[in-house]
Amino acid sequence: MEKQQSTTGLETALGILKQRFGDRFHTGQSIREQHAHTTTNIENQPPDCVVFAHSTQDVSETVRIASDHGVPVIPFGTGTSLEGHVNAPMGGISIDVREMNKVLAVYPEDLCVVVQPGVTRMELNEELRATGLFFPIDPGADASLGGMAATRASGTNAVRYGTMKDNVLSLECVLADGSVIRTGGRAKKSSAGYDLTRLMVGSEGTLGVITELTLKLQGVPEAMASARCTFASIEDACNAVIATIQMGIPVARIELLDALSVKAINAYSGLDLPEAPLLLLEFHGSNASVVEQSESFGEIAEDAGGSGFEWTTKAEDRTKLWQARHDAYWAQRQLDASKSALASDVCVPISHLAEAVTGAQKRAEELGLVAPILGHVGDGNFHATLLIDPNDADEMERAQQYLAWLNDEAIKLDGTISGEHGIGQGKKKYLEREIGGAIDVMRSIKQALDPQNILNPGKIVDLNAD
Amino acid sequence: MEKQQSTTGLETALGILKQRFGDRFHTGQSIREQHAHTTTNIENQPPDCVVFAHSTQDVSETVRIASDHGVPVIPFGTGTSLEGHVNAPMGGISIDVREMNKVLAVYPEDLCVVVQPGVTRMELNEELRATGLFFPIDPGADASLGGMAATRASGTNAVRYGTMKDNVLSLECVLADGSVIRTGGRAKKSSAGYDLTRLMVGSEGTLGVITELTLKLQGVPEAMASARCTFASIEDACNAVIATIQMGIPVARIELLDALSVKAINAYSGLDLPEAPLLLLEFHGSNASVVEQSESFGEIAEDAGGSGFEWTTKAEDRTKLWQARHDAYWAQRQLDASKSALASDVCVPISHLAEAVTGAQKRAEELGLVAPILGHVGDGNFHATLLIDPNDADEMERAQQYLAWLNDEAIKLDGTISGEHGIGQGKKKYLEREIGGAIDVMRSIKQALDPQNILNPGKIVDLNAD
Repeated sequence: MEKQQSTTGLETALGILKQRFGDRFHTGQSIREQHAHTTTNIENQPPDCVVFAHSTQDVSETVRIASDHGVPVIPFGTGTSLEGHVNAPMGGISIDVREMNKVLAVYPEDLCVVVQPGVTRMELNEELRATGLFFPIDPGADASLGGMAATRASGTNAVRYGTMKDNVLSLECVLADGSVIRTGGRAKKSSAGYDLTRLMVGSEGTLGVITELTLKLQGVPEAMASARCTFASIEDACNAVIATIQMGIPVARIELLDALSVKAINAYSGLDLPEAPLLLLEFHGSNASVVEQSESFGEIAEDAGGSGFEWTTKAEDRTKLWQARHDAYWAQRQLDASKSALASDVCVPISHLAEAVTGAQKRAEELGLVAPILGHVGDGNFHATLLIDPNDADEMERAQQYLAWLNDEAIKLDGTISGEHGIGQGKKKYLEREIGGAIDVMRSIKQALDPQNILNPGKIVDLNAD
Repeated sequence: MEKQQSTTGLETALGILKQRFGDRFHTGQSIREQHAHTTTNIENQPPDCVVFAHSTQDVSETVRIASDHGVPVIPFGTGTSLEGHVNAPMGGISIDVREMNKVLAVYPEDLCVVVQPGVTRMELNEELRATGLFFPIDPGADASLGGMAATRASGTNAVRYGTMKDNVLSLECVLADGSVIRTGGRAKKSSAGYDLTRLMVGSEGTLGVITELTLKLQGVPEAMASARCTFASIEDACNAVIATIQMGIPVARIELLDALSVKAINAYSGLDLPEAPLLLLEFHGSNASVVEQSESFGEIAEDAGGSGFEWTTKAEDRTKLWQARHDAYWAQRQLDASKSALASDVCVPISHLAEAVTGAQKRAEELGLVAPILGHVGDGNFHATLLIDPNDADEMERAQQYLAWLNDEAIKLDGTISGEHGIGQGKKKYLEREIGGAIDVMRSIKQALDPQNILNPGKIVDLNAD
């Protein structure tokens, strides 16, 4: 893809922005590179400049200037996305919203909060500490809430609390012409016309820039319990997951680590778990309820042939176990510290989960790849992390073969090529395989709302003109 | 609004349809009137013909013929909508999908089901009876699932199970040119591009015709309990609701009846409840959990000054209470059998619920109107049912004043003019007041996906050309 805007248009826009934003306008190479993709092996494609926005008005004016001069704008939160969402393949303006980091209003009676997009999930939960409320979505990274909404993020406790789709009540967005809209109010439900909130959630900055979010909150549960259980096979572990969901146990987290991932966390976190498929669980509820949930799961695990079942409500033990899970990505990478990581993210109906996971293990072995697996298995979502040497062309080729196979397999099993990471640049080539003709509907919407193709161009879909 | 299509185009289309569909094609006045709006006081505007579709192919061909000749198409399920969604203000073809009534596949392990759009929610639950699973959304009427998705329906147990937005996994739709798309697979979550599922849910047939739905299911709870409690005031009842939600009690239903509605159900269902604000509740869970939930609510109700708190797990007692609630609309109408009913449907943040409900009672009194109130109050959603004489121009005028006031009040309180009934024709004039400039985004999407404006025209938004 070529840069589309004329150099003159770009230069004029940069001049105006410099005048408007002063020391919040940057063109240094290092800061531009930091505002492009940095987390995986996807190429770093820096924008032409970075603007630090402090208000909706700042964002609106920046987009209007970009629109006047046909220059791309790329919204930027914490840069933790995994599929090249913040890259600037056609150059343009990175709008960094990290300093739009105020919690604007907390409504404890309504269990909701209004925040600026640069607030991170941990900052929000810190701010909520005294209220007895929390924001549940936990994608791993301490991502910005604007970015989490833009990529429809989820993570370990989506099985109970849903994804960003379920936890955004409404949004304020800046559209491609710089105008500002609100997609709704604070009502818990609405059937007032097209669901623009859900259209913007997951649109990855290609339809609008999120400048304010109204989010649902949850009451901090009275009690929490954690459990773990080892299984002889992925099938046994998946059968336990299916039974748990079917029985309606309102499990808050249910995570699978394959044997290789268990080996990795043993080494990284100094644990001594059996190197076999492991389920880690968390239960939220009243004191009585978490006991009931833990014991019910224990019975299910036993029926499924599990061993070493343990559960605890002790904060210290819970933290140790979950810290190891949260560090699992880093632990996996230490399996071969000389290599880089390539992320994957498929999601299948849970009845196909065992088949998908064991298939993914087998395919990695066939291709001579190291690819430990972690799964948010209550949702059928799992990640194989490929450890690769970017300078080894043959290994890179095999890694690409693996990813193509994995995505095709997910589609074949009636699942999706992206459970939570989004499409960005990395998965664009697979999207049409999954959704067929529906890609034309996406293209029509993009064309209608951003006819100049200036909003994060080169992500999700290309317009026909590209 | 005038009929847009040329008479020639219409006649040609009717001729082709007659040939194609034979005795599944109808132009009789009575059947045409039955396929227009019949449930409230909105004018009946019949289509030019009715086609009974038996397959996606039937729908696709019908829409293609309509598209070729510029004739409107209006999808029809059970005709139970309340805001004129099935009316044909510009004439055209009503596509009745009621005979597309097959449950195509049940996936018990994945807690999901694939159905045709004409299956009603009760038919689905009947079909699921042996599986231990159920579909929770209950809008009152035994509506078709296609229609429920199209209007983003919800009802009494949305407080626990969400609305159609939360319970549709994916859709098959026929677009304005007759092409068929799928919006996703059976994965529990996805971040694969724009959320076309949620765009179609609630689009009221204006962006596509739903021809197949993949729906989430729930396990039938081990136990259910019902409770009731009377309060001295709406404020006290609403305080109990807020405390219940804040404490995280996973209440399955929490319904408010104002004193006038209690009077109505006493008379209609032979009950003897105190004529004061009443909360009816239902709890789902394990045996232990429903006891715990009931008792916790009992404490909350007592703190809020409630009286006559009773709870039971006996099926017979539960059924009697909930049957009375389900009949409440008919009971309300019997308050004055000589009158017609006009529905309303606003939803506000629950912190504003008491203010909204008492304000609505006061406004009805000021305007000399009878308007008993029922509320799905866990969501802040309530309905005042206006009893009016359509031949009394003065009363009709006062009813319109009331509705305009109520919608404005909901907007002022950061709520919505439609919690679950949709916009249709009846609320079109209020939509822009709620969403401001976002209406232009809706219009752009409509224009992009249905440039001829043949899909259920005259609902939600008008195109600029109208």
